[in-house]
Amino acid sequence: MVRIGIYGYGNLGRGVENAIRQNDDLELVAVFSRRDPATVKINTPGVPVLKAEEAEKMTDKIDVMIICGGSATDLPVQTPALAKLFNVVDSFDTHAKIPEHFDNVDAAAKQSGKTAIISAGWDPGMFSINRLYGGAILPDGKDYTFWGKGVSQGHSDAIRRVEGVADGKQYTIPVDEALAAVRSGSNPELTTREKHTRECFVVAKEGADKAKIEAEIKNMPNYFSDYDTTVHFISQDELNEKHSGIPHGGFVIRSGKTGANSENTHIIEYSLKLDSNPEFTASVLVCCARAAARMNGENTIGCKTILDIPPSYLSAKSGAQLRKELL
Amino acid sequence: MVRIGIYGYGNLGRGVENAIRQNDDLELVAVFSRRDPATVKINTPGVPVLKAEEAEKMTDKIDVMIICGGSATDLPVQTPALAKLFNVVDSFDTHAKIPEHFDNVDAAAKQSGKTAIISAGWDPGMFSINRLYGGAILPDGKDYTFWGKGVSQGHSDAIRRVEGVADGKQYTIPVDEALAAVRSGSNPELTTREKHTRECFVVAKEGADKAKIEAEIKNMPNYFSDYDTTVHFISQDELNEKHSGIPHGGFVIRSGKTGANSENTHIIEYSLKLDSNPEFTASVLVCCARAAARMNGENTIGCKTILDIPPSYLSAKSGAQLRKELL
Repeated sequence: MVRIGIYGYGNLGRGVENAIRQNDDLELVAVFSRRDPATVKINTPGVPVLKAEEAEKMTDKIDVMIICGGSATDLPVQTPALAKLFNVVDSFDTHAKIPEHFDNVDAAAKQSGKTAIISAGWDPGMFSINRLYGGAILPDGKDYTFWGKGVSQGHSDAIRRVEGVADGKQYTIPVDEALAAVRSGSNPELTTREKHTRECFVVAKEGADKAKIEAEIKNMPNYFSDYDTTVHFISQDELNEKHSGIPHGGFVIRSGKTGANSENTHIIEYSLKLDSNPEFTASVLVCCARAAARMNGENTIGCKTILDIPPSYLSAKSGAQLRKELL
Repeated sequence: MVRIGIYGYGNLGRGVENAIRQNDDLELVAVFSRRDPATVKINTPGVPVLKAEEAEKMTDKIDVMIICGGSATDLPVQTPALAKLFNVVDSFDTHAKIPEHFDNVDAAAKQSGKTAIISAGWDPGMFSINRLYGGAILPDGKDYTFWGKGVSQGHSDAIRRVEGVADGKQYTIPVDEALAAVRSGSNPELTTREKHTRECFVVAKEGADKAKIEAEIKNMPNYFSDYDTTVHFISQDELNEKHSGIPHGGFVIRSGKTGANSENTHIIEYSLKLDSNPEFTASVLVCCARAAARMNGENTIGCKTILDIPPSYLSAKSGAQLRKELL
């Protein structure tokens, strides 16, 4: 059994808890929270909720700590600190800062002799693996990543900061024509606007100027101005009823050539269609926890990413079983 | 530079030769053939074609031998024999016999201190990896593999053995309705007949009984009788003109549930659309050769499959580059 702790109990932490229950070789030992443990109700009977500070007393009871904080401010601090005590897994997803985060976590884990797996999930994560496989197999080619249809938390937050907006949700949607062009193997050059559209469902405060809200959203730099954006005004009830989910997904497509004269085209496509973004991410984190325990047992120390994990280490099945059943 | 030998020079061997040229860190050292080397023309200037028996004299010049024989009779003998001399990669694809082949190659490679990677390609190979990832991430689920549209060599051979048939080609085609049902997340139970159809293009010998040929094909056990099969009679010219390619591909789809009450469905789909089956397989073999050289350098000895290879080992890029560019 791999004994697991969950550090941080939001959507992602709850997803990890549910995912652990789907795996007979994994055991949830404790949930750690910065909130008052008495106020945190979890789904697994008999498992304690402890204050975050108590983690350091549990080093002999937990094989892998899955850290479920946010990438902006939590993980840059939590992952290096916890890697001094535990094997850890996180879902750090600020792409531009991954090298820096890697170095910080690597130094901590090497000092403690632990194994740390960072940036697990689907992007970074499974999408990264597919970009890697595609590029390695078809070096004479090009890869494309499309996101959606799905809810972008960052863009939804941006909408909600607009004056006069009470609530809002934003969907990122890949453009069908762009997907078709990529799948044709023509290796098109696509602009930001050609790849994705953005659809916003906005609840306006009473008496707010809707035309002004719409204009402000559509012209918002970085978030919306480079995209074709649609804004729908709806009621809070309709938003709650129809847009409370956190679906997401997307596509990684590699198109490449082979042959004596590059005469043959190949298309590799990987896609995800997820009802719940945090629950799927949690499911990846849980597999990585299994791998982290095994790698540490083999003395593979320091910071790793999902790109460094032999696929078989993610599975509960033995090598012989995998060869017989899946190869 | 990883110095590579090609053992066997048919469609697959030619594909490996072309793929090596796409990778700056790989070098083709020699091609080995059972034919008279004087009769074998290869595409790479300055590279010698040698008799198969001469391989054993080249152990200090070749880092990895890519074995391009057939799975029926060549590889079961060649891979264990060559693993006593070289790091090797093969594409052994008789699924039911993989455990036995693994054991034979493992014993040979452990004796010599070499690294052997067997059953690389796309199925077994990339499809296997995707079945593994899907099952590890979504244990409460089901996976489906569809093949095609593509040419099945085994079924084309079976057609050509029918009395009165001069030539023929068979396409395996996934059924759209079955794909749609799987993508819906309903986890359908599908029969063999519901998943694929088979389409045959047949050139009849002069005076042959076409109705008899058609009936014999459609009722052939194992190959066709469990499928809805269509037979088209065409001329040799039309067969040559329109059906000389070796396209293939297919789909691996994992559908699974997460959540406190299994309320969320996720669909993971991996698909390939390949103009040339052997050239794509060759491209996978070449990445595996890179990994075999690196694993042997790290003293990872014995038989491995693509399920055991850290994805990053397939790439020519460094870990830092991969984290920065792809993660």
